[in-house]
Parts: sequence; C-alpha cells; structure tokens
Amino acid sequence: MEKRFNQSVFEELKSLLQDRVTSETNIRNEHGVGFSYHACTPPDCVVFPLNTQEVSEIVKICARYSTPIIPFGAGTSVEGHILALEGGVCIDLSKMNQIIEISADDMYVTVESGVTRNQIDEALEGSGFCFPIGPGVNATLGGMASTRASGTNAVRYGTMKDNVLTLKAVLPNGEIIQTGSKAKKSSAGYDLTRLLIGAEGTLGIITELTLKLHSYPEAIYAAVCSFPSVELAVNTAIKTIQRGIPISKIELLDDAMMRAINLYSALGYAEKPTLFLEFAGSEIELKEQIKKVEEITQQHEVLEFLWETSEENRKKLWRARTDAAPASVALREGGKLMSTDVCVPISKLAKCIVDTQIDIKESNILAPILGHVGDGNFHLTIVVSADDADEFERAKALNERLVTRALEMGGTCTGEHGIGVGKLHYMKAEHGEALNLMWTIKKAIDPQNIMNPGKLLPKINH
Amino acid sequence: MEKRFNQSVFEELKSLLQDRVTSETNIRNEHGVGFSYHACTPPDCVVFPLNTQEVSEIVKICARYSTPIIPFGAGTSVEGHILALEGGVCIDLSKMNQIIEISADDMYVTVESGVTRNQIDEALEGSGFCFPIGPGVNATLGGMASTRASGTNAVRYGTMKDNVLTLKAVLPNGEIIQTGSKAKKSSAGYDLTRLLIGAEGTLGIITELTLKLHSYPEAIYAAVCSFPSVELAVNTAIKTIQRGIPISKIELLDDAMMRAINLYSALGYAEKPTLFLEFAGSEIELKEQIKKVEEITQQHEVLEFLWETSEENRKKLWRARTDAAPASVALREGGKLMSTDVCVPISKLAKCIVDTQIDIKESNILAPILGHVGDGNFHLTIVVSADDADEFERAKALNERLVTRALEMGGTCTGEHGIGVGKLHYMKAEHGEALNLMWTIKKAIDPQNIMNPGKLLPKINH
Repeated sequence: MEKRFNQSVFEELKSLLQDRVTSETNIRNEHGVGFSYHACTPPDCVVFPLNTQEVSEIVKICARYSTPIIPFGAGTSVEGHILALEGGVCIDLSKMNQIIEISADDMYVTVESGVTRNQIDEALEGSGFCFPIGPGVNATLGGMASTRASGTNAVRYGTMKDNVLTLKAVLPNGEIIQTGSKAKKSSAGYDLTRLLIGAEGTLGIITELTLKLHSYPEAIYAAVCSFPSVELAVNTAIKTIQRGIPISKIELLDDAMMRAINLYSALGYAEKPTLFLEFAGSEIELKEQIKKVEEITQQHEVLEFLWETSEENRKKLWRARTDAAPASVALREGGKLMSTDVCVPISKLAKCIVDTQIDIKESNILAPILGHVGDGNFHLTIVVSADDADEFERAKALNERLVTRALEMGGTCTGEHGIGVGKLHYMKAEHGEALNLMWTIKKAIDPQNIMNPGKLLPKINH
Repeated sequence: MEKRFNQSVFEELKSLLQDRVTSETNIRNEHGVGFSYHACTPPDCVVFPLNTQEVSEIVKICARYSTPIIPFGAGTSVEGHILALEGGVCIDLSKMNQIIEISADDMYVTVESGVTRNQIDEALEGSGFCFPIGPGVNATLGGMASTRASGTNAVRYGTMKDNVLTLKAVLPNGEIIQTGSKAKKSSAGYDLTRLLIGAEGTLGIITELTLKLHSYPEAIYAAVCSFPSVELAVNTAIKTIQRGIPISKIELLDDAMMRAINLYSALGYAEKPTLFLEFAGSEIELKEQIKKVEEITQQHEVLEFLWETSEENRKKLWRARTDAAPASVALREGGKLMSTDVCVPISKLAKCIVDTQIDIKESNILAPILGHVGDGNFHLTIVVSADDADEFERAKALNERLVTRALEMGGTCTGEHGIGVGKLHYMKAEHGEALNLMWTIKKAIDPQNIMNPGKLLPKINH
C-alpha cells in the first residue's frame, strides 16, 4: 500500500500545533487500538487540536498530502474504528471538551465533540434535565454520534440519531459546516445531520454537537426479575413493548452473565435468565406501568421480582450491568473481549437468542449474553484467549453464524457498535445494491479517501 | 433551457406502459400544480406505474434521454414540488397503493408509496395500533416522506424522519435499493433512509416504506382553551413542553383563524387566541397530565377551558383544525393560499409570533395564524387575490421578513412543508457552506440532474 504520510506533513503539523503533535511510540500505540481483540495498528502521529478551526487546518494539511486522518474520541470502540490501517494522522479530540451552552428554555446542550458522557451528567446535575443516551463506557459525544450509539435507555429515548439537533463538522477539504438548526424540526434540504451520524468519521470530523435534553423524571424505580428460561424473559420484554409501556430500560442477562456479574460485583442474584428493569416518570405513571409489567411477568412464570428501591442499590444495579463486559472478561485470565451486536425485529428475538445459546454451547465458547431486548438488540460478550488461534477462529465463526441468523430474520449486523473493520464483510449481505450508493456518497465527499480509510465501507469493484 | 423530452421517450414509455402513459392536456395540467399559488407548470407526459420494477424501467428510459422525472403522490404540496420546471415525465404513484404487510408483533406497516394517509387509518382501524404522523391533507406516504412531513402529532411522535424504518427506492440510474432494516435500530453504514426522507424526489423515487406503528391510546381527550393574548397562549404551550408533559397535540389558532373556522365549520368558539389540546394515554396518565396542563393554563390567565368529551365533538374539533387552510381561503372570494412555515427554538416562539402579527397588520394582508406550537412551528395561511399583483408582492415580502426573523432566531425557513421552488432562495442563508455539501451529494447521485430538477437546491456557482 502506498505510503501517505511523510516528514513534510509532520513538520507542517508541528509548525501549526507545536507540542500538540507527537510521534512518540507509546502515545501512538495508545491510539492504535480500542476496547477489543483487534491488533494494535498505530497512526504515524497524534495531534491534539483545541478548536474546530485547528481541526480544519489539520485536515487541510493532510488533504494536501493525501494523508489519512483518523478521528479519536475516548478510544472505546469495539470494532476497530480507530486502527490506522493506512497510517496517517490521529486527531485526538480530548482537548475539545468544553460544554458550550446549556439551554433550559430550549432543552438542548451544545458541546464540543471531545466532551464525555460522564461530563454531561455532571454538568446537568440538579438542572432538572438529563441526556439519556449512553453506551456502557465513558465515550465522547463525538464518538457516540459517529457510531450511532445508543445503550440501555434507547428503548424509550431512541439512539444518537434521534437526539442530535445540529452538528458542526470539518469536511475532507477542510471546510467547516453547520448542519440542521436548533429548531425542533425542519424540512429544509438533505438531512446532513443524520448523514454524519453513524458515518464513523469517513465523511468528516464532528467537532460540535447540540443534543436534545429531556426532563429529569420525578421518580425512578428499578427491579430485577428472574425467569425459568431465556425465552420467558425475552417474551416478557416483547409483550411490554407491544403493549406500548414506556419503560426506560429493559435489559436481559442470561445465566452465564448473571454468574459473571455476581462474581465481579460481589452480588448475590439468582443465576437465572434475568431482566433488569427501570421505570421513570411521575409516581402515578409509574404505579400504573409497574402494575402492567408485573402482570406480564406473572404471565411468563417469573421466579422472583425484586425491587431495588434505594438510590444506592439502584446505582449499584446499573453499575453491575455497565460492568458486564469487564465482568465477562474477568472470568478468564488473559481473556480478550470480542463483542457481538446483532439487532432483529422484536418478534424474532426469542428464537434468535435461543438458537444462539445452542450454538454457543456447541462451539464450546465462553460467551455470556446481555441485551437491550426492548429494541431487539443483544450482545455476546465472547471472551477469547489471546493466544489460542483455534478458539479465536471458532469465536469468529460463532459471530459469523449469529450475524447470518440475524440477517435472515430481517435484522442488522450491528445495533449500536458500528462497522469499523470488524463488520466490514457483512455490509454487502446486509445492504445489497444500497452499498453502491454509500460508495457513491463517500467518493463524492472524500475523493482522496483520506477520512478514516478502510472503515465502514468494504472494498468492492467500482 | 435545453429541451430534454422528445417523441422517442414517449414511444418507449408507451411500449412499456401502453395506456398508462398520457400526454392529454387536462391530465398534464392536473399534475402541474399543487395546493398553492404557484403557476401551473405541466409535465410533457404523465405515467402510472404499477410497481417498483416499472418505476425502475421508466427511470432507465428517462436516464437514457436525460429527461427530467417528477415523482407525484397526491399533489398536495404547497411549495411547488411537482412543477415540471424543465418539462419531462411525471411519475404518478397513485396506482401503487397496496398495503403490503401489517405486523402487529413487530409494530410496523409496509406500504407502497402511493398509499394515502387516510388509507392507513382505515387499514389500522380496530388493530390496536395507529400511525400518528399526518399533515392536514390526505397526502401519500411517499410524498410525506419526501418532504419530511409532520403535523399536529409531531410534538409527541416526531416527524416522518422518526417514523420510517426502511425504504425501497429507485435511484436516478434505475437501480432499486432497500435502505436500513426492519430492526428497531442499526449502526450499519450511512443512514440512507434519512437521506432520502426530505430529499423531495431529487435523489431517487421512494416506492415502498415500512413505517413504525404505535399503540392506539386507551383514552383520548380534547380541549379548547382561549387566552387574552397570543403570547399567553404560546407561553402555555412552551411551559407544557418544558415540563416534559407528553401531550399529543397542542395547536395554536389566533383570533383571525378562530373567526375563519367558526365561519367555515359553523362553530361558536370564542374568537380569541386559542389552544386546541389533545391528551392520549391511559385514564390514569391522562388525569395527571390534564391536572398539570390545567395548572399551567391558569397561570397564563386562561379565559375558558372547554372539554370536548364525546368522540363526535372531538372529531369535529380536529376536522375544523384540519380545515383551517380552506377556511382561511374561504374568507375571500377567488383567494389563493400562500402558506408560510417557519419553525424556531421554542423559547423564541412567542416573540416570533407577536412580531409577525404586528407585521401582518402593517402589511395589510389577510393572514390567519395557526401553529404546531409545541414544536415551535407555525403557519400564516396568507390569502391573496389571484389578480392583485401589488398585494401578491406585499405577501411575498411579509413571508420574506418572517423567514429572516426565524433564521435570526436560530430557526428554519420550513418546519414541515419542504423547499420545493418556493423556499429555494432561503437555502443559502439557512445552511451556508453546508449547501455545497448538499450539491456534492446531488451531483454524485444524479449527475444528469434528471430527478425533480430545480427543486430543493438553488443554483449556485459550482
């Protein structure tokens, strides 16, 4: 592959950014791998811009030399989004971490794209508002938008695509654009906001986001329900959704996952297929929602319905849920995470999970399951040994069969993690002819293919 | 302008479609104007395909001759989307009106793009589900998607962009694609669904849509509240939204509009600034929502709070609201509608409306106001005389000032009607550099500029 980075690029960046550009090996290596099994593939250098204008200048330099650019948030991607496959310049946005404006009247917050999920929670504390979208890690908002992330609250609040009003972004030619407007809706032209959300940095770099805020609920209740089978647990979730109950979280953990979190977080839950539930709203609304959901759980042979009433216990519960991935990895010394991420139409979910559990058993792979089952989305947190090549191949084959199963059911190869490099080879099967249209868009906007090359779009004959 | 239609195109279409292609003057004229003041600009011929494959064949013929294509649903556009500015072939989708699948389990409905709004309501009657998005006219779903339409329920359910799972579409080269998947969420690649929604047929022709269904509410209540001033009415709406109350409709009608609907629908409401409200949910939820909203109205000096409890009266109320545009036009013999459509951040809404009312008075124009005020979106239903050139210019200038006012407040020139030809000249002011990116996309996907040319994107130097 043609080398697209050279000393001149580095010197121009140096003259622009002084000590905010580095080619130190350890920093490059830190930026060459995410939270996953992919081999570290470091960039040639890492830059730390302070504002959108600087990002634009950096991009202009890279564009002149046809040098690849990899945007970097918190490095929490699980699909290899940040691997520098063709070398180049990693743009670390962590210094662009200002919360620019919180508008209580218009219920939005404007942030630089390096602001993290936890930073927003802290900034909104006591404001009466919340930003409910969050993956299980402290990702940046730019990264979350770029992968169209969602998480446990998506069942009620949607994904990043539903919660961004406008974006500021730098295009591959260095041009700075502002998409959409701060009005709640608009029919004025192409939806550039939604085009950049989920584009994984392949069309431009998001530098600023205006996010919708939601009213902080008057009350929040959480519960833990265990079931005799995963099918009964999943069908409880399906019925809850089909009855239109606006539950705020409905998460499945299978028996293997319950064992993992009990061990990791020193908890004593039943090691049975389990739903973690959260209800948010006014006391009166919740009373009614809870009554309906309790009925549904009883119809599905619930073994135990345990309320976590105190705020402390509730937080402990969701902390355990958030720690599901590290808890799985901790089951095995030297284990590495390979997360799967299919999403299917909800009526197919129970069958998809049950068939997958059989497959896991037959494959002899350690793969606890957890899922945002209200959305039809679930993950296997496969834990592989770093140096067992045979097991690694079996794990990949398991994931492959899982994706095929999901696609056959009308689903998607990724509900919320994105394509990166890990899911590239499913794009054709999932999108067919529409993949050509994606390439048409990519080539028009980024004709030099400098924006995160090798991600999202598999090479095809074109 | 170069003529891009000829006898060969017509003959090829004839051989494909036989009697489903016509160049009869009256049919061409019917397809050359929407619901608005724009002068009729008929296509050279009109075709009536029966399925996606035929649409693809028609597009391939047109592409070979570089002939313009204008997709046509129900012809209810108010911004001139269907004018055949450069002649060409109008593709009337009204024969593609099959409801393909209603999935109760997965809560979606798949329809051909010529299915109308009312057809969906009829098909869902008694199913326990509803599709809540609807403009005030019986548009087709393809048209609604293409203009990113919304309407009275958007305050709770969002717009078309939030309620479409997948699309089938024919691209300018005749290729048929399926976007997205039927899973509730996905992070797999560019969001082609949202790119086509709101593209006004300039990137391709939508031929099939899968729409999200919602649970039909257990109970629905409607109310009419009049206020001493438009400001107090609007502030009531703003507070309702800011408190996070999931009201399903909150519509403003100013005193002029109340007069118009009283006359048109033989009603006897107070001719004061008024909110029409609708609450939908379970009885218990509604009781609480209503209590909160009643409190807010009292804090805003409500004059009268009138419940429409019977289903009959509730339907009559919303029928009157739906008829607001014809009611305005009926105020004046030979009047023609010029609808405006700005949307602003909600904190700016009261000032935007009050300033506009002063402007209307000073302009001496008949322009009742109605608005989806929960979204910050409102319309003047300007009624102009067909043959008073001076008045027409004053009306256009009024709209121009209104759009400028909205843009200065961080809003948009169109909340839900789209750009068509009527709003072309605001695109640069609203989007700045981002307009170049829209052109880049358009030129890449439709290099011959055959898809609804002259709409959505103003000519710029490029």
